[in-house]
Amino acid sequence: MTLSERQLANAIRALAMDAVQAANSGHPGMPMGMADVATVLYSDYLKFDPSDPKWADRDRFVLSAGHGSMLAYATLHLAGYARPTMDDIRNFRQLNSPCAGHPENFELAGIETTTGPLGQGLATAVGMAIAERHLNAIYGDDLVDHRTWVIAGDGCLMEGINHEAIGLAGHLQLGRLVVLWDDNKITIDGSTDLSTSEDVRARYAATGWHVDSCDGHDPADICRAIDGAIADNRPSLIACRTVIGFGAPNKQGTSATHGSPLGADEVAAARETLGWTAEPFVIPADIAEAWKAFGAKGKALHAEWNSRLARNEKKTDFSDRLNGQVAPGAAFKAYLDGLVAEPPKVATRKASENALGALTADIDALVGGSADLTGSNNTKTSSTKPLTKSDYSGRYIYYGIREFGMAAAMNGMALHGGIVPYGGTFLVFADYCRGAIRLSALQRQRVVYVMTHDSIGLGEDGPTHQPIEHLQSLRAMPNLLVMRPADAVETAECWAIALAQDSRPSLLALTRQNLPPLRHDVTENLCLKGGYRLRAASAAKKVVLVATGSEVSLAIEVADKLEAAGQGADVVSMVSTELFDEQDAAYQADILPADTLIVSIEAGTTFGWERYTGRDGLRFGIDSFGASAPIDDLYRHFGLTGDAITSQILARLGA
Amino acid sequence: MTLSERQLANAIRALAMDAVQAANSGHPGMPMGMADVATVLYSDYLKFDPSDPKWADRDRFVLSAGHGSMLAYATLHLAGYARPTMDDIRNFRQLNSPCAGHPENFELAGIETTTGPLGQGLATAVGMAIAERHLNAIYGDDLVDHRTWVIAGDGCLMEGINHEAIGLAGHLQLGRLVVLWDDNKITIDGSTDLSTSEDVRARYAATGWHVDSCDGHDPADICRAIDGAIADNRPSLIACRTVIGFGAPNKQGTSATHGSPLGADEVAAARETLGWTAEPFVIPADIAEAWKAFGAKGKALHAEWNSRLARNEKKTDFSDRLNGQVAPGAAFKAYLDGLVAEPPKVATRKASENALGALTADIDALVGGSADLTGSNNTKTSSTKPLTKSDYSGRYIYYGIREFGMAAAMNGMALHGGIVPYGGTFLVFADYCRGAIRLSALQRQRVVYVMTHDSIGLGEDGPTHQPIEHLQSLRAMPNLLVMRPADAVETAECWAIALAQDSRPSLLALTRQNLPPLRHDVTENLCLKGGYRLRAASAAKKVVLVATGSEVSLAIEVADKLEAAGQGADVVSMVSTELFDEQDAAYQADILPADTLIVSIEAGTTFGWERYTGRDGLRFGIDSFGASAPIDDLYRHFGLTGDAITSQILARLGA
Repeated sequence: MTLSERQLANAIRALAMDAVQAANSGHPGMPMGMADVATVLYSDYLKFDPSDPKWADRDRFVLSAGHGSMLAYATLHLAGYARPTMDDIRNFRQLNSPCAGHPENFELAGIETTTGPLGQGLATAVGMAIAERHLNAIYGDDLVDHRTWVIAGDGCLMEGINHEAIGLAGHLQLGRLVVLWDDNKITIDGSTDLSTSEDVRARYAATGWHVDSCDGHDPADICRAIDGAIADNRPSLIACRTVIGFGAPNKQGTSATHGSPLGADEVAAARETLGWTAEPFVIPADIAEAWKAFGAKGKALHAEWNSRLARNEKKTDFSDRLNGQVAPGAAFKAYLDGLVAEPPKVATRKASENALGALTADIDALVGGSADLTGSNNTKTSSTKPLTKSDYSGRYIYYGIREFGMAAAMNGMALHGGIVPYGGTFLVFADYCRGAIRLSALQRQRVVYVMTHDSIGLGEDGPTHQPIEHLQSLRAMPNLLVMRPADAVETAECWAIALAQDSRPSLLALTRQNLPPLRHDVTENLCLKGGYRLRAASAAKKVVLVATGSEVSLAIEVADKLEAAGQGADVVSMVSTELFDEQDAAYQADILPADTLIVSIEAGTTFGWERYTGRDGLRFGIDSFGASAPIDDLYRHFGLTGDAITSQILARLGA
Repeated sequence: MTLSERQLANAIRALAMDAVQAANSGHPGMPMGMADVATVLYSDYLKFDPSDPKWADRDRFVLSAGHGSMLAYATLHLAGYARPTMDDIRNFRQLNSPCAGHPENFELAGIETTTGPLGQGLATAVGMAIAERHLNAIYGDDLVDHRTWVIAGDGCLMEGINHEAIGLAGHLQLGRLVVLWDDNKITIDGSTDLSTSEDVRARYAATGWHVDSCDGHDPADICRAIDGAIADNRPSLIACRTVIGFGAPNKQGTSATHGSPLGADEVAAARETLGWTAEPFVIPADIAEAWKAFGAKGKALHAEWNSRLARNEKKTDFSDRLNGQVAPGAAFKAYLDGLVAEPPKVATRKASENALGALTADIDALVGGSADLTGSNNTKTSSTKPLTKSDYSGRYIYYGIREFGMAAAMNGMALHGGIVPYGGTFLVFADYCRGAIRLSALQRQRVVYVMTHDSIGLGEDGPTHQPIEHLQSLRAMPNLLVMRPADAVETAECWAIALAQDSRPSLLALTRQNLPPLRHDVTENLCLKGGYRLRAASAAKKVVLVATGSEVSLAIEVADKLEAAGQGADVVSMVSTELFDEQDAAYQADILPADTLIVSIEAGTTFGWERYTGRDGLRFGIDSFGASAPIDDLYRHFGLTGDAITSQILARLGA
């Protein structure tokens, strides 16, 4: 007999029910509702080779509604990926199983991006779709010719980031992006009528998308809609009308199936309803075979692609680039030498622009942008012409006023491979994209955040624009490299460090205001140590001044005054606390001796600086919101002047 | 002669040009572009009484495009508010001037909300409009019958929060909300064509809004559009087609006018173009008089309103409520007594629900909600029926999957007055609404964030849902009261503290998992001290264990083991570091003696705990991302067990 698509889809349903039931935790409703759509996608459309999950020209599939993770695990397993195994699925949501509560790219090769925080999967997919078009423009159809597919739920569509993401996708006319919306009219709280009255299709259409609907349980209708999406040159939204928890006779169509196990009785009833007679975690051989066959087409396409790659003159370049090999070259070397020859007094945002000028000349993979602050973030260089819908080969993206969408798109580009994305906004608006910064860090992606206007030093724009808690709150985030350079040399060093990371994002905190040159030697990248002695005490050492960014030159001024008073003072530039914390204990103890007064100076919250100063040290900073005034008035107002700091240190020393 | 509306509008333009020029900093383009619209709004529509900026039934005007602050300062001054004075305006963007770079509600009584972080003004206005309808439903048209007006720019409309805000407003059919969109087709980076292709009007229409357009420089056409908006029962968007920097002959219509002074030459040319002959900061008497007359109608309406209030039987209730007077009453007292009689073993999220059950019975002003996690955040009580478009008297808002929109709306409700808003989401999604939490804190508003699932204790949902850095990153924020109670009594105390705040928001971090009762006495609110000795050492004190929330019971277990080993250990429940830091030095030294090993235990980052432990103490926590597994496995995996912690403490003590 021929297997119906329904029977194939029921394999997803059975695994979802069983795994959630075994874990006594999870979300069966979405996988059961979208099983038919997923089956059609895998059988007829998705280009994939289960034997090589990282094939560069595979289609990308993003489960934006990440709570439905069992749909991803079930399809990967059924389609013949090495992992997850059935044992992995049996251990769904258990310690050390790659089948985590939400899909994690670092656990399974077949998972393209970590999802769960709603809305971000789709926004990340936009970045993947940009990456595909950009690399296609450079390497041609022979090497880059794939699609990005998304399954998204109502949550993904209600989140604010959805607006930013689809606005960007519509503007850039990303026709190879198809979003399959699980239109089940149910959220956790109940019917969508409780909280929304939106005409989603009309909204997407207003943003330049092709829109259609289909019966999400009718394979033919799903195919019709997807064919229409492929034929259209705009990004596509397909509203798949589904029943959440499809097949669970007493609970389907209700929020009861969303986030809880169905319970043994309802699982049994569902098996009955679906005609699924196999034991838990068992897939009948004919169904297993049919699923495995889905990958055959992709396998063949992959083989053809391999041949094309072997013949392609850009073969090595393409492979290196997709493998993430980037390194500063001649232009950057020349730039560094120039910094020594003529040390500039510039804002570190300007120093970043200058470093980027060299780096973007050296490294084609660098694709930049800004959330509508190009001239303020200094993110555009002469090598980066705009990436537009009529020229995807450009390397500069006008992201618009969409910080969160920008950050998620950068994650998508980095995950896609072949691109090292960087993007700018004001540091204070890290708050607007913090959810995506966290996913850069969790997903271990080389994304570079160019965050300018990094303190009250921005002046008149006032407290809404002045970061206070931001540096420390970002340093508190795992696996994010925060760097705050003090001059042009340090800025260049930080860029080199950011590009050398292979498993974490970096965030550069840069000034609006000019800073004097402090470093005159570039033979060693001193910033690699995180914190280093920029200047050693002349008199007997009584104090170590630990400062960052714009406050390092202030620390030098304080040190001068202390030395004049006979008190020896080291100045440490603490460019990155993360890197400093990674040094060995001997190095740390040498820089921050236990028997010396340690003083921190940073124009932000003092919270957390006790890590270096201890309870007995001194911390200079700002523990309230900022104010609107010219920069010098502000530094005075907040007590961050050489005189004010020196006098308090002298008082503490009893000197 | 009769003054034209254009002449009146030119007063705004002149002040904007002159103030920005004098400060050599600021944004002239928006005030000059929207001057005609603002003039029409003030002359014909806005209900205000300049002699009483806090009149409860005034219309609310929100300048969502906060960078155009000079428009707000100019109109307030011209309309006859006591502040800003012309001297204030002369000192635009200078230290101690109330005319800050962006409008600040705490600097000027006439500023309804602090704006600048784009998109939030409009989203805050949605909360104001909800508050108006809710109070109208309770107190009737006699006392509550006003509108909310917003001027928004392209940035406000592109930000993701715009989608959340207008979705909520459309769903709740907030017909008294009118958004005047400064449709000038320019952003900082240049033409809006660089980054967006959206049909904004169609998007708003899709979300249930009335939409119209007008010529933003034609008073009659502006009136026509506003009249239409008022007549419609949906919220309204009016696209005001304007020229940015209108009147500056060489720069108008370009991004050059957006965020920089025009320069002396262009200011002179603009005066010429506009026919404005007065000296800088001088308003001709006839124009000044005409502007002052705008307030006459509102003054009269205010007088009538005063009479109605005096006659109203709910007069005292209304006034107390608008003055923010709320206090727990009999139900809460009974609830506390019950906790002593029968100490429950419950999750603190459940304890919060129980406390709220009493508090919402006692306090009508409490209006709650959740971003689609009602059953998880435990935010709904029997006293709070849904607030819907057909019944605005409800006190529970199904915010949908809109964390940022929820938080901004809560700010709007608090700013409006008469409502103490609380709302829930998972703690990890504080990242999604952090921008609005910061504005709660900066604006000094009594908003209560109910953040549940506050650690790896949530279990299987895994690292995307497990907060790690969140508690510390929120504690780093100025003026936010973060509280993490350890049992039901502490949870109740924290609620009482949150409601007693008159100038800061609170955030309650609550567990998913059950916790044992630790407190058996409610005669004193011990949480008021921030950190207090929950249990004193029996043996000679060698260690102070400082823990929060779910880790306090773990600390008790550790203390038991230490005492069994002959090492005396205090247990301190550090409910709120902010409150503890506000205690006097003697109290702090008593709780955390300098000569004792201080150990912190919190299932989150250890970053920042050095404030209490010093560099020599021990910090137990999690400095990586979490994992997906059952709770007990996770606590073991991350070394947060009584045995693991005790053995390390004993090793440190050499015992």
